Amino acid sequence: MKLNCDMGESFGTWTKGMDAEVMPYIDMANIACGFHASDPLTMERTVKMALAEDVTIGAHPGYPDLLGFGRRELECHPEDLKAILVYQMGALDGICRVHGTSIQYVKPHGALYNKMMVDNTTLSVVMSAVRSYAPHCPLVVMATPEWQLVKDRADEYGIEVWFEAFSDRAYSDEGRLVKRSVRGAVHETTEAIEQQVTQIIQDGTVTSISGKRIPIKADTICIHGDSYHAVDAARHMRQVVGSL
Amino acid sequence: MKLNCDMGESFGTWTKGMDAEVMPYIDMANIACGFHASDPLTMERTVKMALAEDVTIGAHPGYPDLLGFGRRELECHPEDLKAILVYQMGALDGICRVHGTSIQYVKPHGALYNKMMVDNTTLSVVMSAVRSYAPHCPLVVMATPEWQLVKDRADEYGIEVWFEAFSDRAYSDEGRLVKRSVRGAVHETTEAIEQQVTQIIQDGTVTSISGKRIPIKADTICIHGDSYHAVDAARHMRQVVGSL
Amino acid sequence: MKLNCDMGESFGTWTKGMDAEVMPYIDMANIACGFHASDPLTMERTVKMALAEDVTIGAHPGYPDLLGFGRRELECHPEDLKAILVYQMGALDGICRVHGTSIQYVKPHGALYNKMMVDNTTLSVVMSAVRSYAPHCPLVVMATPEWQLVKDRADEYGIEVWFEAFSDRAYSDEGRLVKRSVRGAVHETTEAIEQQVTQIIQDGTVTSISGKRIPIKADTICIHGDSYHAVDAARHMRQVVGSL
Amino acid sequence: MKLNCDMGESFGTWTKGMDAEVMPYIDMANIACGFHASDPLTMERTVKMALAEDVTIGAHPGYPDLLGFGRRELECHPEDLKAILVYQMGALDGICRVHGTSIQYVKPHGALYNKMMVDNTTLSVVMSAVRSYAPHCPLVVMATPEWQLVKDRADEYGIEVWFEAFSDRAYSDEGRLVKRSVRGAVHETTEAIEQQVTQIIQDGTVTSISGKRIPIKADTICIHGDSYHAVDAARHMRQVVGSL
Repeated sequence: MKLNCDMGESFGTWTKGMDAEVMPYIDMANIACGFHASDPLTMERTVKMALAEDVTIGAHPGYPDLLGFGRRELECHPEDLKAILVYQMGALDGICRVHGTSIQYVKPHGALYNKMMVDNTTLSVVMSAVRSYAPHCPLVVMATPEWQLVKDRADEYGIEVWFEAFSDRAYSDEGRLVKRSVRGAVHETTEAIEQQVTQIIQDGTVTSISGKRIPIKADTICIHGDSYHAVDAARHMRQVVGSL
Repeated sequence: MKLNCDMGESFGTWTKGMDAEVMPYIDMANIACGFHASDPLTMERTVKMALAEDVTIGAHPGYPDLLGFGRRELECHPEDLKAILVYQMGALDGICRVHGTSIQYVKPHGALYNKMMVDNTTLSVVMSAVRSYAPHCPLVVMATPEWQLVKDRADEYGIEVWFEAFSDRAYSDEGRLVKRSVRGAVHETTEAIEQQVTQIIQDGTVTSISGKRIPIKADTICIHGDSYHAVDAARHMRQVVGSL
Repeated sequence: MKLNCDMGESFGTWTKGMDAEVMPYIDMANIACGFHASDPLTMERTVKMALAEDVTIGAHPGYPDLLGFGRRELECHPEDLKAILVYQMGALDGICRVHGTSIQYVKPHGALYNKMMVDNTTLSVVMSAVRSYAPHCPLVVMATPEWQLVKDRADEYGIEVWFEAFSDRAYSDEGRLVKRSVRGAVHETTEAIEQQVTQIIQDGTVTSISGKRIPIKADTICIHGDSYHAVDAARHMRQVVGSL
Repeated sequence: MKLNCDMGESFGTWTKGMDAEVMPYIDMANIACGFHASDPLTMERTVKMALAEDVTIGAHPGYPDLLGFGRRELECHPEDLKAILVYQMGALDGICRVHGTSIQYVKPHGALYNKMMVDNTTLSVVMSAVRSYAPHCPLVVMATPEWQLVKDRADEYGIEVWFEAFSDRAYSDEGRLVKRSVRGAVHETTEAIEQQVTQIIQDGTVTSISGKRIPIKADTICIHGDSYHAVDAARHMRQVVGSL
């Protein structure tokens, strides 16, 4: 079970996340590509940090919306969206090339990630972009009860998918994330997070917000690097995953 | 003698240049990379056009300044500048890869191009970026009487340089471009442009604004694609170059 | 019956529209405020042009999306949207103040305009922003059969509304604009445009794309300034309106 | 002696500064206007905070350079620069108007501030912009030994100037700020800062980095709100100033 974390989300003089501190505890760094966050120098520094800690580098492309941090849905023509994705993958890969490496997977960010999980056209465009630019790169998607449909679609495009579960987010009975605006949507205690991660790994399930047991087939678990206790949480998750 | 032209300088719904009309008459398309002009979809369309006309594709990176179209000098830390260049080369190259090709040379844009020709630190950063990302790509620089110095520097970095002359710009006695604000800085008639191009090719010289004969060692000539008569001028230059 | 036209839609070195040529034929200039188009200097030049032709100046705020020209729907929290509107009105008004004038009305742009006409929350936020910043400024909204509902809402906010009809766009049987993607959505001939304008003014109706007569209560007609024949169309509309 | 502090420097989801914590201890809030930092909602929140603490609001306009936080010199045509300044003052003033207040002074930011202090054309453009938009607003400039020249220039434009000194920056023998890259350029200890502020207030001088006593005529002292100990420093400066 791999731990992935969004990285390189600073922008110019604004910092976000504790990348240097969290990097030692994760397996996969989802590096922002300059459209919703990051900038060329931040990307380069993050690539160097990932290399130093032997962390796998993935492209984390988003909508072109710095102000909204890529968390706002933005209408995007498929042709436009595909070009935007290829541009971002290429840009990060360019920085990787200068440091003797390359991107190893792709995970869309924020509103684009959410859209991809509910809109077939968007999912197809994302898969097509990955297939065209980096057919060797798995696409990270959300682990849901309908995972087989996503898997089948990926097979059509000839790409691999990695399913991800979330360590600190509550799930609905349908196996979706509970919206952040709902009370209890985010697990606040280390115990709750640890419990969810352990259950995902050992039992292949999560317990939904209403108490229902939901099957979750996950290859990787997403942790967050920008909360107060991000570093502690990362270290702890590392231990939990390592001990199982 | 190759004709090069800045291409892909539209941005979103704003168009600039007559790329489709000019493309058939040029050898090298300097494609903007989204920082001073262009956007992912415009870049992709321009790459397709270049491929259809068998035109060599070069990266045309600039300062991050859409509002000023990259024509304004912008203070840039060397580390920052290098990352900015690699990012832009990678982004265009990503779009090229999706279409089965790759960038073949690099020509900086506007204020960055001018800075590189007068500031050794900037020239070094540019050469270092090209060397790191695309050592097979020649760097297009201005043909000046001091060309040997630039050539020597490129040798140190292990990259090739291509010298370019300008078809429609007047030269000073020092072999530099006369500033646009000076009367006579831009040749307005086809005769003047044709005369300058012919002289560069046949004689290896240009006649300066004061009438002095200046040696110019050029591998390529820059024409412009965004004036009224750009298409006619391109077609004409093609004939002039072809007949010599 | 007033003619209004979107103005000041250039951005940096990219030009759009034939503002100088169209300005003499219109009554109201909807001036972009820098978020979906325009920039401070373009805004200032447009304000000067409007003053020279005695054209009423209105703020034309949009979503923060230069790349999409404000035509893409963008999720926006109400609190955020209100601040965005006030910012843009204030910015244009600042430029007006330096030239001894001020904004006289407000017309949202593109996707924001469309959203306002179908989403009550958005309409409320827009009205609230106008009320808070410029209670003397009428808000331009689309003339629809449900105009009374919009009027009532405006009364609650204590602002005036001006209803606008479109000269060159086809209407559905419901009195809405036919989407641009539908064949026949945009009137291409001067005759069709003249016919629609005359009917709006003399009869208070438009004929829908299916041939139905729809009542339209309009205070102003929107013409476009960025097509080939924009200047001719503007001159012609001026004559049509003047002769009725 | 007034304490001024840069405020509202967050951008979207990126936060900078401890505005809420520092606001109670300052007299003047220099609020960023969206070009080098801030966004409409951040500006509105900052205006509300300032009002709640009865702090005077000033416009803090900068170069259009989010990536560089307005700290990089950017070539700007005077006509362009003036429009940029008016736009930013108007935008902030618009937000102020909605909250029943208005901007009370103007202090340019970062590279623009520095340029204004060494380049007469830039100083003239800034003064002209203030005069045109807000003739009642004093312009904050750096207190230097050549203060009389600046004062004379302001008199020509019919505006007032407020001179500012810096609490935590070392001065050169010429009464200029020592560049940040020089060792000792920033006072790190509370004692050094307190000593400098006390000396400015009681003696009208600062001791330069080489030990020379330099006359400083200051109306206001700039403190910083984005360091670790910003809140403590602000509280302390408040006490120092209050006790003298």
